[in-house]
Amino acid sequence: MKSKLFRVAVGLFLAASVAAQSMSAGNGTLMGFSAAGTREQREIEARFDASLKAENLRDWMKRLAARPHYTGSAAGKANAEFMADQFRKWGFDTKIESFDVLFPTPKTRLVEMTAPERFTLKLNEPALKEDSTSGQQDEQLPSYNAYSIDGDVTGPLVYVNYGTPADYDELDRRGISVKGKIVISRYGGAWRGIKPKVAAERGAIGSIIYSDPKNDGYYVGDVYPQGAFRNENGVQRGSVMDMPLYPGDPLTKGVGATKDARRIALKDAETLTKIPVLPISYADAAPLLKNLDGDVVPEPWRGALPLTYHFGGKTPTVRIKLEFNWDIKTINNVIAKMPGSVFPDQWIIRGNHHDAWVNGADDPISGLVAEMEEARAIGELAKAGWRPKRTIVYAAWDAEEQGLMGSTEWVETHAAELSKKAAVYINTDSNGRGFLGMGGSHTLERFINDVARDVRDPQMNMSVWERARAQQIVSGGTAARREAAERPDMRIGALGSGSDFTPFLQHMGIASLNLGFGGESGGGSYHSIYDSIDHYLRFGDTDFAYGVTLSKVCGRAVLRLANADTLPFEFTNFADTIGTYVNEVTRLTDTMREDTLLTNKLIESGMLRAVQDPRDTFVMPSPKGEVPKIDFTPLQNALKRLQASAAAYQKASAGKNAPAGTQKQLDEILINTERSLTSINGLPRRDWFRHQIYAPGFYTGYGVKTLPGVREAIEQRDWKEAGEQIMVVAATLERFAAEIDKAAKLF
Amino acid sequence: MKSKLFRVAVGLFLAASVAAQSMSAGNGTLMGFSAAGTREQREIEARFDASLKAENLRDWMKRLAARPHYTGSAAGKANAEFMADQFRKWGFDTKIESFDVLFPTPKTRLVEMTAPERFTLKLNEPALKEDSTSGQQDEQLPSYNAYSIDGDVTGPLVYVNYGTPADYDELDRRGISVKGKIVISRYGGAWRGIKPKVAAERGAIGSIIYSDPKNDGYYVGDVYPQGAFRNENGVQRGSVMDMPLYPGDPLTKGVGATKDARRIALKDAETLTKIPVLPISYADAAPLLKNLDGDVVPEPWRGALPLTYHFGGKTPTVRIKLEFNWDIKTINNVIAKMPGSVFPDQWIIRGNHHDAWVNGADDPISGLVAEMEEARAIGELAKAGWRPKRTIVYAAWDAEEQGLMGSTEWVETHAAELSKKAAVYINTDSNGRGFLGMGGSHTLERFINDVARDVRDPQMNMSVWERARAQQIVSGGTAARREAAERPDMRIGALGSGSDFTPFLQHMGIASLNLGFGGESGGGSYHSIYDSIDHYLRFGDTDFAYGVTLSKVCGRAVLRLANADTLPFEFTNFADTIGTYVNEVTRLTDTMREDTLLTNKLIESGMLRAVQDPRDTFVMPSPKGEVPKIDFTPLQNALKRLQASAAAYQKASAGKNAPAGTQKQLDEILINTERSLTSINGLPRRDWFRHQIYAPGFYTGYGVKTLPGVREAIEQRDWKEAGEQIMVVAATLERFAAEIDKAAKLF
Repeated sequence: MKSKLFRVAVGLFLAASVAAQSMSAGNGTLMGFSAAGTREQREIEARFDASLKAENLRDWMKRLAARPHYTGSAAGKANAEFMADQFRKWGFDTKIESFDVLFPTPKTRLVEMTAPERFTLKLNEPALKEDSTSGQQDEQLPSYNAYSIDGDVTGPLVYVNYGTPADYDELDRRGISVKGKIVISRYGGAWRGIKPKVAAERGAIGSIIYSDPKNDGYYVGDVYPQGAFRNENGVQRGSVMDMPLYPGDPLTKGVGATKDARRIALKDAETLTKIPVLPISYADAAPLLKNLDGDVVPEPWRGALPLTYHFGGKTPTVRIKLEFNWDIKTINNVIAKMPGSVFPDQWIIRGNHHDAWVNGADDPISGLVAEMEEARAIGELAKAGWRPKRTIVYAAWDAEEQGLMGSTEWVETHAAELSKKAAVYINTDSNGRGFLGMGGSHTLERFINDVARDVRDPQMNMSVWERARAQQIVSGGTAARREAAERPDMRIGALGSGSDFTPFLQHMGIASLNLGFGGESGGGSYHSIYDSIDHYLRFGDTDFAYGVTLSKVCGRAVLRLANADTLPFEFTNFADTIGTYVNEVTRLTDTMREDTLLTNKLIESGMLRAVQDPRDTFVMPSPKGEVPKIDFTPLQNALKRLQASAAAYQKASAGKNAPAGTQKQLDEILINTERSLTSINGLPRRDWFRHQIYAPGFYTGYGVKTLPGVREAIEQRDWKEAGEQIMVVAATLERFAAEIDKAAKLF
Repeated sequence: MKSKLFRVAVGLFLAASVAAQSMSAGNGTLMGFSAAGTREQREIEARFDASLKAENLRDWMKRLAARPHYTGSAAGKANAEFMADQFRKWGFDTKIESFDVLFPTPKTRLVEMTAPERFTLKLNEPALKEDSTSGQQDEQLPSYNAYSIDGDVTGPLVYVNYGTPADYDELDRRGISVKGKIVISRYGGAWRGIKPKVAAERGAIGSIIYSDPKNDGYYVGDVYPQGAFRNENGVQRGSVMDMPLYPGDPLTKGVGATKDARRIALKDAETLTKIPVLPISYADAAPLLKNLDGDVVPEPWRGALPLTYHFGGKTPTVRIKLEFNWDIKTINNVIAKMPGSVFPDQWIIRGNHHDAWVNGADDPISGLVAEMEEARAIGELAKAGWRPKRTIVYAAWDAEEQGLMGSTEWVETHAAELSKKAAVYINTDSNGRGFLGMGGSHTLERFINDVARDVRDPQMNMSVWERARAQQIVSGGTAARREAAERPDMRIGALGSGSDFTPFLQHMGIASLNLGFGGESGGGSYHSIYDSIDHYLRFGDTDFAYGVTLSKVCGRAVLRLANADTLPFEFTNFADTIGTYVNEVTRLTDTMREDTLLTNKLIESGMLRAVQDPRDTFVMPSPKGEVPKIDFTPLQNALKRLQASAAAYQKASAGKNAPAGTQKQLDEILINTERSLTSINGLPRRDWFRHQIYAPGFYTGYGVKTLPGVREAIEQRDWKEAGEQIMVVAATLERFAAEIDKAAKLF
């Protein structure tokens, strides 16, 4: 009898040789390059690496994060202009592309407890003498949630944990309704915009979100300024627009928010919240939570404040009054191009946003300065006579924090051109110390694995790929550990949302990557005035070693994509991952069927009632409708075809260049593979999201749902729609396979 | 493909019919009774039930918990005398049996932080106006851990989580030594006596134990007097003697602590702690914890105080000064007998302790009053002319809190007589509202299941058996749930320690049961001045409905055992459970082997080093010795023989009485089966513990280790001893099977 762990242990031995192979393959030819091209490319990469300087990252951070530089601020505009100047200096054809978007800022913010006693919340993050920029209060936006509607509401308070649908199901079982009440939820568990959305669906009239010390305060580590974590006054700002419906300007869905764009009326904007919502600190939240009546909440709902967490429902009574300036603000993207010498109409796009909620040294400057250093080093190569075969586009997006506005409006404006030309989009955002995180299109999985194998970790004597893989083997669950030990490539994560890749990948079907380091730095400064240079230089990637390493990873990816003879797309890894998704949705229905059977049996047998404490409130749930047998055959057949096509292309193209005269055609087919994963009809109830494989969850916000049409239909128990979506996804995969077949035929 | 859950769901349907069968079997004959005997017995049980009165329980609690009645107190002695009077009144042949045991009480208690600033701990539980007995300070013992040695030590403080061996392994990996230092651990995770024991083994010079609000304070529920849980000043008293070595008087190991018993010198008493130890409240602990330096502790170590938990190691410096009165105190057991009419030399013993740390309304009075009401109702039956066939012994033990002293000294004193006569011991301790918990010898598993099937739950329209089973099906893990749904009898828990069954079961090999209700009442008053009548009447079994139900369960068990024609022992359930233990120890070695292989590979490959943050301290562990293949064949063969013998006895005895003249002989063999599970040599390094199947863990204290000789040798990686102990346990099971064979031959 060999157990799982034993096989993992053996797998580690095997994997040692696999890793060795990959390392030696790293001395062979690069994906998409000839042997000669590989030698040349490696020489370019060595020169690129050699010119990277940590001081530049530090200097630019000090400049760009010196003042609050939110969307529409003077400092934000100055930053864009400074960057544009730099890109120009480095040899890029640069312009600032502006859009005009809805961006509300607070006019009135009032939260008070009116009973059992009166208490007015401070709603204030104080300056700290240990943090030199925290005192720039005249230039800071106060703490608030953008795209909350105006309102003045009073009602009893209910604690709803993270405010997810599952949390409200728990409230239902306890007989607690939020109708006509104000809910207080803690940050975490789902993207913040989900909290007021679900609260409104359940009938709440107002929503408060607070940062519990359990999630990023003293429970996790020492608080600022002693340590990196959120102190009692820290508040997480953030957008709460309904981004899973569509991101970008709420008034110009699907089209660029140019000066003369057609705008819908504010009252018709679907992505504003339905109820007023405001974020608060835990110092402000504690008196509210202390006064909650009712039963004690279940264990997973409890935070780290020194009090007993109750559901509430009658006490206390709270008032929220919010009024906003509903202004249209001009946003400024920096777009810097270096035209390709051979395939100028194939674009490799690289982006990071530049706007912050306040000073944003970590979010987004830590990622932005790595991107700038890449561009500078590429500029140096160009000055020395090198030219990329494909066009390179460096972008610094504005208004990401509001809802991916800069990238979305730019993508929507240039949709036709991008549809033809955009080959790959590479995104970064905040960066820290630790382990490489890789997410993106699985057609780029092998490519980015190879890149990561070629970059050294700045702390350990190994590649960043080896360190990331070691982490999965040491810390992963049994399955993840085994896979990491046995699979030649690390499986990259699927992308949900939360940064600027979304319009590229999920609206346009442009193969995308999202990259960054983390796990050993950070803390609780996110979206507060304490996300500052002082904080980052103490608790972030303090010597910018990982910033430079991020430049190496992303710059290498850009250079290889721009210079390869053939775009380094690969489909067997993609097919393998799609296989895991098909398995997951199949198993999900089986699990739901069995859970339903069991739960119904527990209800009908009286056992569920039998175990309740009769002194507690408990509302017996109704039995659920049975989960029918769902026919996954179309999906399984499409998967088989996909696997066959992927294998055939690999066999046909192995070690060969495209036959003379077909290179451009081959690249265009390869670029088109990701487009073929989109459908013009988009996902049910959210047609802006066109990608059929990756989407942010309708009720998770950032968290990805793969095969979203099928998976969310199953989760919502809409069996008819699940059947329809199986057909849609199957057709999508068939279309994708047909593209690969076309490519294979060229050889 | 049918998954596990599906099979469970189906299992529930099947189980419905099994349950129905069991219910109807309940209308058939009782185990060990003829059809006529069953009718008579059921009539007696109905009369017994009818005479039980909740008011009695309440009145006795009010009397017995009116004043602090710890061992050696005037109130404790008065309680014993009151109970003895009652038992006499009810018709029992009653005496008070006294012993003289070592019982230290505090003379000096001082804990202070001496650096970085001076702070002296209060070490005081204040009276509350809402609790009428909390102000009896003149009669209370202060908060302390009994059997701590005297000492005056000063050193830097280290936080060690629960203070288990695994926690110290974590400290080792972090490069933190406790040598020459004082440790602070929180209550929980293991029995309190383990904490100073392991601390001393690791070189600490002093030990502080505090109650973290995560474990029984505001994190769990509202604190006293608002709610039931431990407030900031509540302290858990308790014994810290090394009970896993031997319980009872430290000076008279293995013999009764009679007046003239031979006593060892205090300095030679092995079960005293090696270092001074004191329990404190979280109000007293917070300033110490706040001042700990060093890295932040891992997530599972964090409590619920509003601070960041650090390891410490240099700061703060703490002094503990403790001096005790090392007195010999007289303890008073109440022993009440009702002689059997047919088999007077077969004893059914029923016990609950009567001493408390302070007022002890919950611990132990809530269980004691249920026992008294049983005795009163049995007395009524006797007054009406009924006599038990076997002798019934009701006992109220003193000095349980100090280390099971009353029961242990009585058992040691009467060992020879008990060895011949004791058939079964039934124990209770604190009792609450909720679900029946059943633990004990698995030869009594079917018997106690049948008893539980015949007692109605006071809150739900079902038997207490059905409610307990529903809980396991609704809340259990997949395996527990499936077993509960599919197995005719609920599997009862194996007994470790923590109450008075230990000397009976584990020293003498007397088949034992431990019974009680809980899960819906309780809180954090354990071993504090707030374990009071006021607390119990608000948060315990407030109407004593479960107290009366406990009387029904235990009284029924006593009456059936006393009246059955044949003692209702059953061996197929026992063999089934032994089979699960043999599987567990086998799997344990496999898991340890694979873990060792994996861990060593992670060390040798450098992966474990690769994932460490180089800015944290990390001490690379040494590779562990490989786990050899262990030969479990002797154990498996013995198990097979046991299964065959159990089945043969069941077949031989089914539906029959013992042939004329053999009844007494049969009973004696049955009684002897549990004796045959003991060995006079006891367990390695603790010969007092003679049972080869059940023991408290050497490093868990209360928590059971089944097949302890084998299991603990494996856990300690002593492969030679594991092999030896496999032979010992195999021989034990063969001996047991031979006893069953003897019994079967009588038919």
